[in-house]
Amino acid sequence: MPEAVALPVTDSQRQRVTGVTVTPVAFKDLPLLNTVGVHEPYALRAIVEVRTEDGLIGLGETYADADHLARLRLAADEIIGTDVWDVNELARRIRVVLAGGPGTGDHGMAGMVTGTSTADAILSPFEVAFLDIQGQATGLPVSTLLGGAVRDTVDYSGYLFYKWAAHPGHEPDRWGAALDPDGIVAQARRMVTEYGFSALKLKGGVFPPDEEIEAIHALRRAFPEHPLRLDPNGAWTVETSIRVGQELDGVVEYLEDPTPGVEGMAEVARKVPMPLATNMCVVSFAGIEPAVRRDAVGVVLSDHHFWGGLGRSRLLAGICDTFGLGVSMHSNSHLGISLAAMTHLAAATPNLTYACDTHWPWKDPGEDVIAPGALTFSDGAVAVPTTPGLGVTLDRDMLGRLHEQYLECGLRSRDDTGYMRGIDPSYELLSPRW
Amino acid sequence: MPEAVALPVTDSQRQRVTGVTVTPVAFKDLPLLNTVGVHEPYALRAIVEVRTEDGLIGLGETYADADHLARLRLAADEIIGTDVWDVNELARRIRVVLAGGPGTGDHGMAGMVTGTSTADAILSPFEVAFLDIQGQATGLPVSTLLGGAVRDTVDYSGYLFYKWAAHPGHEPDRWGAALDPDGIVAQARRMVTEYGFSALKLKGGVFPPDEEIEAIHALRRAFPEHPLRLDPNGAWTVETSIRVGQELDGVVEYLEDPTPGVEGMAEVARKVPMPLATNMCVVSFAGIEPAVRRDAVGVVLSDHHFWGGLGRSRLLAGICDTFGLGVSMHSNSHLGISLAAMTHLAAATPNLTYACDTHWPWKDPGEDVIAPGALTFSDGAVAVPTTPGLGVTLDRDMLGRLHEQYLECGLRSRDDTGYMRGIDPSYELLSPRW
Ligand SMILES: [Mg+2]
Ligand SMILES: [Mg+2]
Repeated sequence: MPEAVALPVTDSQRQRVTGVTVTPVAFKDLPLLNTVGVHEPYALRAIVEVRTEDGLIGLGETYADADHLARLRLAADEIIGTDVWDVNELARRIRVVLAGGPGTGDHGMAGMVTGTSTADAILSPFEVAFLDIQGQATGLPVSTLLGGAVRDTVDYSGYLFYKWAAHPGHEPDRWGAALDPDGIVAQARRMVTEYGFSALKLKGGVFPPDEEIEAIHALRRAFPEHPLRLDPNGAWTVETSIRVGQELDGVVEYLEDPTPGVEGMAEVARKVPMPLATNMCVVSFAGIEPAVRRDAVGVVLSDHHFWGGLGRSRLLAGICDTFGLGVSMHSNSHLGISLAAMTHLAAATPNLTYACDTHWPWKDPGEDVIAPGALTFSDGAVAVPTTPGLGVTLDRDMLGRLHEQYLECGLRSRDDTGYMRGIDPSYELLSPRW
Repeated sequence: MPEAVALPVTDSQRQRVTGVTVTPVAFKDLPLLNTVGVHEPYALRAIVEVRTEDGLIGLGETYADADHLARLRLAADEIIGTDVWDVNELARRIRVVLAGGPGTGDHGMAGMVTGTSTADAILSPFEVAFLDIQGQATGLPVSTLLGGAVRDTVDYSGYLFYKWAAHPGHEPDRWGAALDPDGIVAQARRMVTEYGFSALKLKGGVFPPDEEIEAIHALRRAFPEHPLRLDPNGAWTVETSIRVGQELDGVVEYLEDPTPGVEGMAEVARKVPMPLATNMCVVSFAGIEPAVRRDAVGVVLSDHHFWGGLGRSRLLAGICDTFGLGVSMHSNSHLGISLAAMTHLAAATPNLTYACDTHWPWKDPGEDVIAPGALTFSDGAVAVPTTPGLGVTLDRDMLGRLHEQYLECGLRSRDDTGYMRGIDPSYELLSPRW
């Protein structure tokens, strides 16, 4: 038998929370069209800073719709004194403080995602901040704390949108208009040139399905090797969805949320050749069982912002693995803290094999709350930070400027439909639309 | 805006593996009866020690059947150089080294559990040892690394067995015979007096069902408030299971594996009033979906030894939570490293609300590989260790003695049936038996 070895005694890396700051910010957004309207001139986010007794600061980023912001502030007061390793206690306190409020809601996704868990959406930015601090305290990147990076870089997809040349009354933006197949292909070419994306996704549900089918065929001709996806956000009936799915056989790797509701998705899934992906039909743990029992979806788009943070997103990925579902990643308009969190999560999730969605190219490169340089795209991928925690640091000047912009812009909730109606009073919200 | 705060720079807590030792041990076991035979005079376990460059030693415990031991040693060689935080890499290397071998198997459970994942059973002790080292490196208990203890003590159940007074040719053991309801009640009284258990489980499948039903009724009369369970290890037909379930309506909190196979369990589940629990019908991630789709089980007994360690057992618990299944915990004969791991896991698993199974009382109190005092029972519960890592340390003298006992006892695999046949040549293995 080998001799006994004395174990080194180590100071505990516990870190008690001593303060939490929640700062809403606004950053410029472009007139990206979707089936419920058009992106407003500013996107809103809330930046969460968690401070500990040892002076560490962990970062999180989430939606900033007024109701969500009010709940974040309730939670912020409640979590003082917790240990950043004790995510179970964090989740418990959040459940307690939210008790009596809505169990599910819409947290800044323009009415396209309902049925998310309010508790999970509030938990998320604090859990990410806790992991950031755990990483700083141990010198380990968040991907390591999540079980280890299985890849050094994370692939993202080029997220194409129909768009106007400019917000009404503004100068044309740097991307210009894209309102037909040629416009979409031109947008894709520029995005692939600038970022190197090797997969492309088109946000659909804007024009009649045949025009969007034609845009996908045009993309296939222009990019013979790029995996393609089409996401109309539930704009189609079951019949339309089946027709589109059959026409795009062999052309798209998956069809995302063609039709609303688990029953409709299940019917479409039985009749189209490709997997159906979703960030609308399965958006909370409560929604998984009904979809599994009906075989309604083949790929779940995880999103740590509404799935309860990075740990619970790994649980979602484990569930998908167990039930034979694929995993991809959903995005809303976001800043660098979220990109860092998404990248660590994707790096540590072995079965997240699809390129992740991101709105990153649509953001003004000069507007972010993190110090530049931590996250860069090369060949459509972001290198996983190897520095402790999330690997990003707050740029306080920019945080202040984007908070001022929030105060000045007047927006307090995302409302793509209201903005569209202000421009076109005849605009109607229809679901499904075709 | 608050001022920027400089972040303390912390040395990375990475710990590279420099050595792994796998030591088989044997400890005395009692003639506990079950539906495939009787426990042999010794139970076998393998003790895994993982050493790092900084001199930390992490501990794991698993089965020691010959085939399993050979695979453990293959894996041990393969994981040198991994970082103890990188469980994804650990799992990958184990999958690679086991490729070509059996995907599923029986790892020391006397033929009562088949269909477990070989890779998960090999992963388990190494993952536990990695967590032990992570805890030592950070000063945090394993329960904290798993997301935080939600309870300070973990309840265990008193695990009652029909048994002979002694192994043939031996002096009567300290527990004596229990071969009828009175014997079981006497055993329960002693176990509750000595350990304080507030829940009781009877291992059945040994005598005709009516005798075991009578034993449960006798326990109910003697212990009016204790939750009760009966586990015949699949000894009954569907018809018998339904009859027993109906007769025990309101008496047992769950009925465990009454009948073999997912189809039979589903049929029983539809016709009995209590939930069916299992550690035979669902024993790997591949087995979850068939059982969920058929509503075959209501409670899954987790067991980190075959579910791939503590992290993957938490995934199992998350899946159960998602699909509305209860979670309890299974046990085989085990030593203190396993008891520590089970306790940390149960402490950090919010929905593990049933008292966990343990064979602990059946072990000779003088035989263990850990230094005494770290784990004690009070009111049927074990206090969750608050010291770093698992909170137990190896007793190298005892490890050596129990390894010598392994070498001398001659047993190389668990074989309850073969041992029973050596005593009673007419003994037949029947499934189902009644
Ligand atoms: Mg979508
Ligand atoms: Mg059992």
